[in-house]
Amino acid sequence: MRVPVRVGSASYEAIVGSALLAETGKFLGGLVRGRKCAVIADENTAPCFAAPVQQSLRGAGFQPSLITIPPGENSKSVAQLGAVCEQMAAAGLDRTSFVVALGGGVVGDLAGFAAAVFHRGISCVQIPTTLLAQVDSAIGGKTGVNLPAGKNLLGAVHQPVLVLADTDTLRTLPARELNQGFAEITKHAVIAEPSLFEMLEEVAQVSNLRDSDATSSNLAPLIARNIEIKAGIVAADEHDTSGERAILNFGHTIGHAIEQAAGFGRVLHGEAVSLGMVAACEVSVRKAGLPEADRHKIVRTLQSFNLPTELPRDLSREQILEAVRRDKKNEGGEMRFVVTPALGSARLTRDVTVQDIARAIEKL
Amino acid sequence: MRVPVRVGSASYEAIVGSALLAETGKFLGGLVRGRKCAVIADENTAPCFAAPVQQSLRGAGFQPSLITIPPGENSKSVAQLGAVCEQMAAAGLDRTSFVVALGGGVVGDLAGFAAAVFHRGISCVQIPTTLLAQVDSAIGGKTGVNLPAGKNLLGAVHQPVLVLADTDTLRTLPARELNQGFAEITKHAVIAEPSLFEMLEEVAQVSNLRDSDATSSNLAPLIARNIEIKAGIVAADEHDTSGERAILNFGHTIGHAIEQAAGFGRVLHGEAVSLGMVAACEVSVRKAGLPEADRHKIVRTLQSFNLPTELPRDLSREQILEAVRRDKKNEGGEMRFVVTPALGSARLTRDVTVQDIARAIEKL
Repeated sequence: MRVPVRVGSASYEAIVGSALLAETGKFLGGLVRGRKCAVIADENTAPCFAAPVQQSLRGAGFQPSLITIPPGENSKSVAQLGAVCEQMAAAGLDRTSFVVALGGGVVGDLAGFAAAVFHRGISCVQIPTTLLAQVDSAIGGKTGVNLPAGKNLLGAVHQPVLVLADTDTLRTLPARELNQGFAEITKHAVIAEPSLFEMLEEVAQVSNLRDSDATSSNLAPLIARNIEIKAGIVAADEHDTSGERAILNFGHTIGHAIEQAAGFGRVLHGEAVSLGMVAACEVSVRKAGLPEADRHKIVRTLQSFNLPTELPRDLSREQILEAVRRDKKNEGGEMRFVVTPALGSARLTRDVTVQDIARAIEKL
Repeated sequence: MRVPVRVGSASYEAIVGSALLAETGKFLGGLVRGRKCAVIADENTAPCFAAPVQQSLRGAGFQPSLITIPPGENSKSVAQLGAVCEQMAAAGLDRTSFVVALGGGVVGDLAGFAAAVFHRGISCVQIPTTLLAQVDSAIGGKTGVNLPAGKNLLGAVHQPVLVLADTDTLRTLPARELNQGFAEITKHAVIAEPSLFEMLEEVAQVSNLRDSDATSSNLAPLIARNIEIKAGIVAADEHDTSGERAILNFGHTIGHAIEQAAGFGRVLHGEAVSLGMVAACEVSVRKAGLPEADRHKIVRTLQSFNLPTELPRDLSREQILEAVRRDKKNEGGEMRFVVTPALGSARLTRDVTVQDIARAIEKL
C-alpha cells in the first residue's frame, strides 16, 4: 500500500506492507543523490533488521555503513547526536549522502535529527520497526533529542524522502510494545476518524496479531489509514504554529506528566497516553459536552488492547499535577489543553484550568 | 542605512550605522513573539557590548538573559551547543522566545544554530560585532558547529529576523581582526562588484579607520553595499545547491587548506582567504583568462590592508596540498574550484586539477 504524503514543500510516499526491508534499495531509485549512506539502528534492532536493509542497499549500488546506538531514551542526547554524526563523517558521508533511520521512535528522532543537521541537512529514509513509530512518530518530520531540562527540546522539522513501514518487523515486537501503538491509533480515532473504532474492534478479536496473516491483512490497512490521518493533520500545520497539529497532543499533556512522575521507562509512552486520554475524556465530558457513551467507547477500546485506564495506586497524583504545572509554565504561562466534544473531533482550548485537570487526575 | 534581505520565504532587514546597540529593543517591535530572550556573547565581547543591548531590550519590555561562552573556535562544538541550549531552557525560554547573537563569527554561528534547533526553531537576531561578521558570516543564514572531523559539519540554514551592524563595535577591534573583513570585501569585489575596488582604495587611505568619523562615513556605506551583494548571491541559492552560492567560496578552497595546515589560530580566517585568493588568481590567469592587470589589482588591494599575499616560509606546501586533497574527497570525489575570468565575475569549474592547485601553492 502506498500512502502519498504532502507536507509543506515536501512530497513523498509511505509504503506499508510485508517483506519491504529487503526492497529498501529498490524503492530509493531517483529519491537520493549520492551512494553513501548511514544505516542507524539501536543495538537491539540492528541484529534483527540491519542485514536485509544493508544487503538490499548494496544490491542497488549504494554504500551503506551501519551505525549502532545503545537502546533507550537516553540515546536521544546531544552527546549521542555528536557521536553519530562523527561516525557519519568518518564513514565518508558528505552532503550528497543520506541516512536510513531503522528502528523505533528513539532511532527515528535521533537519526532524523542527525540527517537534518549533517552538512546542514541531508536526505533521510525512515524505516519504523514498531507499531507506535509506524502510525505516529515516523510520520510528520518531527525529529530531535532531549536536554536534561526536558524532552525534545532540541530538534528540527525534517521531512523524510520515503517511509517504509514493514509489518513483518511487528511480528517480534513484545505485546506491551505493540499495544503502545494502539494507544496512538485510538487517539486518531478520537480526534479525527471514528470509523477506526470498528477497525480496532476487529483487530482486537484477532487471537495472534503477530501471525503473518494478521500483520498483512489486519494491521497493514490500519497502519496505512493512520498514516493518512496523521499526514493530513500535519499538512495543515507542518511547523505546529496554527494549532491544527496541536490536536495530536490529545491525551499527551497529562500523559507526559505521568511519564515524568513515574520516571521514564516504568510507564511506556503509549501507556501514559492511554491514561492521559482517559483523563482528557473526563475533562471533555465536563467542559466540552463529550457524551458519556463516547467516553465509555474510548475506554473500552483502550482496555481491549490491555492498555491501562486506571492510575497505579502508588503513583503520586500530586507529582503528576506538579509536572502539568511545569509544562504550563513552559508554554508562555497559558494552559492549552486538547478536548474532544464528540468522537472524530478535537480542539485546543484555553478554558481548561489546572483545577479541572487536578479533578480528572484524582478520578483516574 | 537599511538593507532589505529577501531569501527564500524569509524577508528581513540589515540595519547598518552607529549607536545601534542601544536601540536593539526598539528595532524588534513586531518582529518577535515572546518577551524572553537569550543574549549570547563570548567572555571577551560580553563586557564591551552586552550592557547596552540588555538595557535596551529591558526598556522595550523584553526579558533578556545573558549567556556567555569561552572565546574562540573551540566554542563551536556540539557540547557547547548543548550547554547553551540547557541554559536557555533554565532561563525559561520557550518556543515563543528568541536569541540575540552578539559577537563575531563564532558566536553568530553557534547562537544562530542554537536558535535553529531550540524547540525546533525560534527567532534569531544577529548583531555582528566584527567587520568580517558584518559583511559576511552574519548574512545568509548559515549557522553551525564543528566536529573533530571538520569545520561546520553540523548546522542549519536559519535566517535571522533582523541583522544589526553597529559600526561603533569596530572601533575597539584589533587591526588584524579588522583587516580580516577586508579580505571578504575584496572577494565580493572580485566575484561580483568591481566598483568596490574604488571604495576600498579610498578606505585604505584613511589614516585611522577606528575613528568615529571614519566608521560612520567610510565603513558604513561599504558594509551596507557588501551586505547587499552577499544577500543577492544567497537569494539565488539559499541552500547552496545550484552553484550560485558556491562562488562565495572564491579563495576558500586553498584558504581552508592553509588554515588547517597552519593549525587554526595561527593564520586568521581572513588572512588564509587572502592567501587563497592570490592562489586562486594564479589558477584563474592560467585556466580562465584572468588578465595580469586584474590579478595585480587584487593583490595590491589585499596588501593595502596588510593582508598576507605570500605564504610564510615555514608553512609546508605539501601539507596544504594534502588538505586540499582531503577536501576534494569530501565533495563526492570531484574537484570543484571557483575561478574569476575577469573582475566582477566568478564561476564554479571542474576543469581545475590538483596539479593546477599544486603549482599555484608552489608559487605562493
